[in-house]
This record gives sequence, structure tokens and C-alpha cells, in this order.
Amino acid sequence: MIIKPKLTLVGAGPGDPELITLKGLKALQNANVIVYDALANAELLNHIPARVPTIFVGKRKGHHEFSQKEINELIVRLALKEGNVVRLKGGDPFVFGRGFEEIVAAKNYGIETEYIPGVSSAVAVPGLQGIPVTHRGSSESFWVITGTTSAGEVSEDVRAAAITQATVVILMGMGQLSKIVEIFLEAGRCEMPMAIIQNGSLNHEKTAVGTVDTILQIADEKKIGTPAVIVTGETVRLHKDFPDRWRELELLISDLKKDEPTAAQ
Amino acid sequence: MIIKPKLTLVGAGPGDPELITLKGLKALQNANVIVYDALANAELLNHIPARVPTIFVGKRKGHHEFSQKEINELIVRLALKEGNVVRLKGGDPFVFGRGFEEIVAAKNYGIETEYIPGVSSAVAVPGLQGIPVTHRGSSESFWVITGTTSAGEVSEDVRAAAITQATVVILMGMGQLSKIVEIFLEAGRCEMPMAIIQNGSLNHEKTAVGTVDTILQIADEKKIGTPAVIVTGETVRLHKDFPDRWRELELLISDLKKDEPTAAQ
Repeated sequence: MIIKPKLTLVGAGPGDPELITLKGLKALQNANVIVYDALANAELLNHIPARVPTIFVGKRKGHHEFSQKEINELIVRLALKEGNVVRLKGGDPFVFGRGFEEIVAAKNYGIETEYIPGVSSAVAVPGLQGIPVTHRGSSESFWVITGTTSAGEVSEDVRAAAITQATVVILMGMGQLSKIVEIFLEAGRCEMPMAIIQNGSLNHEKTAVGTVDTILQIADEKKIGTPAVIVTGETVRLHKDFPDRWRELELLISDLKKDEPTAAQ
Repeated sequence: MIIKPKLTLVGAGPGDPELITLKGLKALQNANVIVYDALANAELLNHIPARVPTIFVGKRKGHHEFSQKEINELIVRLALKEGNVVRLKGGDPFVFGRGFEEIVAAKNYGIETEYIPGVSSAVAVPGLQGIPVTHRGSSESFWVITGTTSAGEVSEDVRAAAITQATVVILMGMGQLSKIVEIFLEAGRCEMPMAIIQNGSLNHEKTAVGTVDTILQIADEKKIGTPAVIVTGETVRLHKDFPDRWRELELLISDLKKDEPTAAQ
């Protein structure tokens, strides 16, 4: 049999195994070997024939079993030896998935590559909670930022985002949550609506909804952990649990107005 | 038969009909009626039983057949009369799709709603062209903005984004392309890499790759039209067609260095 080395990056979506694409599913079924990580739902492996080996390269109990350099080397060796390596990643492979580094590693060995996009948690996880990342009158844009850069810090882009009108979505930010909140407070956004959603799209999903100045306490009370999506902006106000002080005040005022005789009378 | 009114919003993905999710496909197959628009690939309707009526509410030759208000009313009436209305939209329904307005309209009549996310063109279309929206060393974030607001203008967020380090993705911006380029030029970003991708993920995909100061001419030469995704930032430099003057200069310099005796010798 002639080996045709190939790397196929597949986005697994935010967690719900039905949120993979048809194309991604077909790629899994045509794999010679599958390399997957913690954010890809392992239930997806039920779709593949038993003869296809699967290799887990994600975190276990906080420890990386494989460094990114080792994953790149593994992919190259597997592709040259086995043929089509499907690399299954949570969300979309190019949204903080380090997917492009794997593409570059494969290309350096002349290995054919394919990218099959996935549903990104950045949009889907807030959306499934009734928080649209954009909405007329509330938000004309959304800005998706990593909470943990290669240096292990909050991205400087969070500071830039905190003073804009964009819906701000932060992935992998739970380890830096108090720092992120501090950045928004320093930008004077203490009353800006903010939500944190853990395990979005899955049955054990948990949500904290509040404002920048209340979210730490709410997240603590609700014991929100990782992996989670942090979302800040006016559209968070649309969530059913948002404590809408302003809407309550508006209703109170409009009730008062009803009882008042108008100037025309 | 008892009618159970429901609105199911389904993201069709960027164009390639295989980029719909399994969950989205199942929703199509369980629809009582389908309402779709121009950005959703009509091939997807091949998956549904012939008895299910489909209603096109998109643009034809630049004219809206239905206003958003009419679409909202149509959805409500259909749900009350027919049951499960599947609303199929291009990309993800909450990324400038006005999907949440339809959810609100349905909820106002007590109609059950469901959101099934889709692969957003904002991430997938650049990615399929070899432009990752994030990449270590190049970009820690991406900012997705509408090129055409409800007032028909470029969003003010484009001006804010032009001075940041984010990868900037602009959807529905082709009608305002020269204005968008002007905003980046005014921000002093004349050499920032920029690409425009028309009909991303489809066979008749077309791409223009250049910099802020060259993109208008390149897009004109390549006759790029709508619908298109505009992407600006350092990761555009990774595209195979990017005219990398800097890399050429670096290679030239490193070649010179090779011929030079080192201090140690």
C-alpha cells in the first residue's frame, strides 16, 4: 500500500458532539490515525472504525503529556508512516488552537495539509446561553482574545478591548480572571455586564451572570471552573439571569408616567 | 395533530454545504417549514423531505423581497400555523445575522426557540485560505466587525480596531471598501497586510492579497465582488500569495552574512 502523508486539522466544535461539521465527521471516518486533545469531545471517536488508532495528547490533571513541539513531531512521523493523520481540536483549530503551527510543521516536510473549520466556542457558547455576540442596537462587533498568552500573561489586547464598544470574548482566561476584572475596572467599566460560562454546550454547563464589579463573587459562589468562556458587553444584558437594574428603573418610571395627566389634557 | 410552535435558528456555515453541523442537518430534517436566505447554500435543501415547504427571504438582484420586520412576522405566523420553523442562515445566526431579533419576535408570542450555532465565515473563510485568525507570535486576538451598520455606514469600531494589534475581520464591507482602506491609512497602517476573499469555501472562491495601500488596486484587477470577507493583520502575511518584501530583504541580508567572515575567525 502506498502511504500518502497528510495532516487534516478538524475543528470539533465547542463540546456537544453534534456540533461537529459533516466534513469534519467524514474526515474522522477516513483517518488512518487520530490525534486529539482535551477540548475535543471524546464521544466523537465513537464515529470511527475500531481499527483506527487514537492518540490523546491533551492535558491530564493539569499536566501536559506532550509539548507542542512533541505534538508537531508526532504528527509528522505519523503522517509519513501511517498516511492521513486527523488532528481533532476543540472549537476551531485556528482560534488559539496552535493549529497553524502544526500546519507549518507538516508543510516543512512536504506533507499535504487540510483545514476543516469548526464551530468556535467564542460565538457558540455565549449564543447557546442567549447572549448573541452581535445584536443591532447593542453591538456592531466582537473581539475574541486569549486570556493566557505564550508568556502566561493576560494579552495586552484585553486592556485595549476594555475601552471599546465591542463585545469582548476571552478564552482560556479563568486562571487570570481577577486580573481581567481589574483591567475592566481600571477602564471604568465597573457596571459593564459580564458572564462566565463553563462547559458550554454540554449537559454540565454552568453560568455566572453579573457585571464587572460583581462577577468574581458570583463566579465564586457558583464554583465556576475551567474550561470557560468569559464574555463582556451590552449583549450580556440580554441573558435571562441578568440583574437588570436599569430596566427595573425604566419600568418604574413608565408606570409613574401612566398615572400622570399629559399636557394635552 | 397538535401544533407545537417553535423557531429553530440554524447556522448553515460559510458556503460549503458540508460545513453545516450534524445538529443543524438534523434540525433541517425535522422541520415543518424552512425559511432561508441568500447566504445559506440552497444545496442544503436537498437533505430535506420534499413535503417540507421552503421559503426564500433573501436578497434578489440587490432587492430585499422581505424586510426584517416582515421576516419576523412570517416566522411567528408560520410557527403558530405549521409548528417547527427552521430558519437557515449563512455562517452563524448571531454573527450579524439579525438572528437574535427573530428569537425576540418569537419569544414575544411565547414560541419556543432554539439556536444551533454554525461555522462563522469570519474565522473559516480566512482559515481556508491559509490565514489563521490567531497565531503565536503574530496575533493574540481577532476582532470581527460589520462593514455596514444599520445606518448603512462603516462601524465606528473599524476606526478603533485600525490602531490595535488584533487581526481585524470585516464582514459585509465590500460596499464600503474604499472607506475602510482610508480608515486604516489614516491610522498609519499603509503596509499592514490585507486580504479580501469572495465566495469563501466555495469552488468559485476568489482572493486578493496585498497591503492596505495596494489592496484596492489588486481587488479591482481581480474583480472581487460580494459576498466577501476582508481580513487585515500580521497573520495575512502567512498567505502563500503575500508579497513578502521583508522576508525577501531578510533572506538577502542573511545571504550576505553567510559570505562574511565572523569575528571569531
